[in-house]
Amino acid sequence: MTDPTSPRTVRVDLGERSYDIVIGSGLIARAGAEIAARRPGIRCAVITDRNVAAAHLDSLVASLADAGVEAAPLVLEPGEKTKRFDELVRVCDHVLGARLERGDAVVALGGGVIGDLAGFAAGIVRRGMRFVQVPTSLLAQVDSSVGGKTGINSGHGKNLIGVFHQPELVLADTDVLDTLPIREFRAGYAEVAKYGLIDRPGFFAWLEANWREVFSGGPARIEAIATACQAKAEVVAADERESGARALLNLGHTFGHALEAATNYDSARLVHGEGVAIGMVLAHEFSARMNLASPDDAARVAHHLREVGLPTRMSDIEGGLPPTDILMTHVAQDKKVRRGALTFILTRGIGQSFIADDVPGDEVFRFLEDKRAS
Amino acid sequence: MTDPTSPRTVRVDLGERSYDIVIGSGLIARAGAEIAARRPGIRCAVITDRNVAAAHLDSLVASLADAGVEAAPLVLEPGEKTKRFDELVRVCDHVLGARLERGDAVVALGGGVIGDLAGFAAGIVRRGMRFVQVPTSLLAQVDSSVGGKTGINSGHGKNLIGVFHQPELVLADTDVLDTLPIREFRAGYAEVAKYGLIDRPGFFAWLEANWREVFSGGPARIEAIATACQAKAEVVAADERESGARALLNLGHTFGHALEAATNYDSARLVHGEGVAIGMVLAHEFSARMNLASPDDAARVAHHLREVGLPTRMSDIEGGLPPTDILMTHVAQDKKVRRGALTFILTRGIGQSFIADDVPGDEVFRFLEDKRAS
Repeated sequence: MTDPTSPRTVRVDLGERSYDIVIGSGLIARAGAEIAARRPGIRCAVITDRNVAAAHLDSLVASLADAGVEAAPLVLEPGEKTKRFDELVRVCDHVLGARLERGDAVVALGGGVIGDLAGFAAGIVRRGMRFVQVPTSLLAQVDSSVGGKTGINSGHGKNLIGVFHQPELVLADTDVLDTLPIREFRAGYAEVAKYGLIDRPGFFAWLEANWREVFSGGPARIEAIATACQAKAEVVAADERESGARALLNLGHTFGHALEAATNYDSARLVHGEGVAIGMVLAHEFSARMNLASPDDAARVAHHLREVGLPTRMSDIEGGLPPTDILMTHVAQDKKVRRGALTFILTRGIGQSFIADDVPGDEVFRFLEDKRAS
Repeated sequence: MTDPTSPRTVRVDLGERSYDIVIGSGLIARAGAEIAARRPGIRCAVITDRNVAAAHLDSLVASLADAGVEAAPLVLEPGEKTKRFDELVRVCDHVLGARLERGDAVVALGGGVIGDLAGFAAGIVRRGMRFVQVPTSLLAQVDSSVGGKTGINSGHGKNLIGVFHQPELVLADTDVLDTLPIREFRAGYAEVAKYGLIDRPGFFAWLEANWREVFSGGPARIEAIATACQAKAEVVAADERESGARALLNLGHTFGHALEAATNYDSARLVHGEGVAIGMVLAHEFSARMNLASPDDAARVAHHLREVGLPTRMSDIEGGLPPTDILMTHVAQDKKVRRGALTFILTRGIGQSFIADDVPGDEVFRFLEDKRAS
């Protein structure tokens, strides 16, 4: 019998770029030992933000020091705005200034913003250094930490500049989630539920029954995170560079990114996971409208996401949205677009999503016109 | 019998990232047809500099237009200073502003600076777009265009930020070299000779006999460029990410980079190929001093490089050099350094170079002290 509270390890299988995601309690305090055991003699730059630093930086640095791992910390401002070019320059300068070599590591201690930015820096300093993630948000643990996507935002859109750079190791400490604001935990939960909606109907049903325990902590939380990581790892292993099946991970994201862009990435109004929650409901509703799926499935998705406290409709976004033709330009700028045709992830029901090419833009336009008012 | 003036194609064998280098006369005028034949419907951003634009941009854009390939040109300032973060941002913004998609291409029309910068942008916009190189300097044709290294400079050193991003196609038009300043042609020639010194003693002897024809143009030029590209392609194919044998390509570069840094990358005093020329002579002389090779080989290398007009001694650099301990910090910051030990490419004779780990820093220091005065 396995102790349900002991750490779980998910292997991301990418040939010579394979790595482990360790998920469990108390991992920050064990980070130094985990890293030193895998790479004796390694040195680190630890990139974090002010909020996370206050809660966890001392503990991580002490753990590294105890294991004999030198660490040069850099504390950035929290928030999506940090994912920009001049902060990237700052991280690169810090890593070079610490005279780290190719075999040394950039450690990201934080949520998705820190992971994406530090991972991008790790991918470009000396044309690629080692990278270790210590994700401190639920979203980062289940999403950003699997798959090697890194990047920053551009005036033209979110995550439009970046590289694929796989971490060496991910340490997902589930205790740190207890101190997350509930809104942020919920936003991460949207991505957890997504894996059920993509191709694991049994997992979605399990979440409907067990979500309260996932929120309160304990074994169900570890189980949910491990299942989500495993699901993403399988998709990524099959399609590392997002040329095919990996697009399924974008379920809810084309609409979601457009809503984030339309609200100027203002996290007071909408955070990424909230955009994904609304986007997933829209993807199910649009699929029903195209007679691909039953409207009951869309209603079931909306019910569960609303039950955990997530927004599920465009009208849930405070402050209103720009006209639909502006929304459409954000939909079309999404980088999943191919040669002018609109590509969406649609579904035939819970856990039956698929990649739809050549979705007619005018259908999407009319759908958004109708939905924004509802 | 093959016509010695017809184009030569060198295949760089990197699995799914394999690509062709086409080397010959009149290729800019045929670029549109070459690109459209390989990727129908592709769109391009053409990145170039003011000098190259004046000579070749109209011809390239006309060739693309004739083949039905849309092209959005961006003209940057010439010179090494353009390899910096804010110019990278500018190129990324230009590519995104042209609404190019992942399957579209960034085309680099220029020398190594443009190739490194545009290739870096191609590697990070939308996490990797297609990349086509039209190298217009000898250095870019034989060196930067093979191997997928891209990057910019940092205050901490040259090429410290970048990615490995392979082009789809390289079109090396040998006619454009006729308009190069002789000093720039010579600098590129240092890298051509390097391939002889690494592991092709017969090619080095051929260059000693035929270098005048390489300089004046015609079949010997195409032959020399194709041989250099083939040599580099073989090394890169064996070690794409520079974890091992690829380090041989750095023959002359650890000293060369240090000299470039010591002259603040001031191209009036020293350009990259000149640094490499002096660096290769130093590598042969240091190898002789370590009793690894005969001093006659070092003399032969110095004689040939001097004969074509390249600098071969530190004292050839105008304006003097900083103290040797400063030079040493530039040597040690070089990114080929591993865990504090100094790694050099040394040699047992012409065409017998090898990777030497654990070269004692104090030997290097004393050698530089002696040599700078000679």
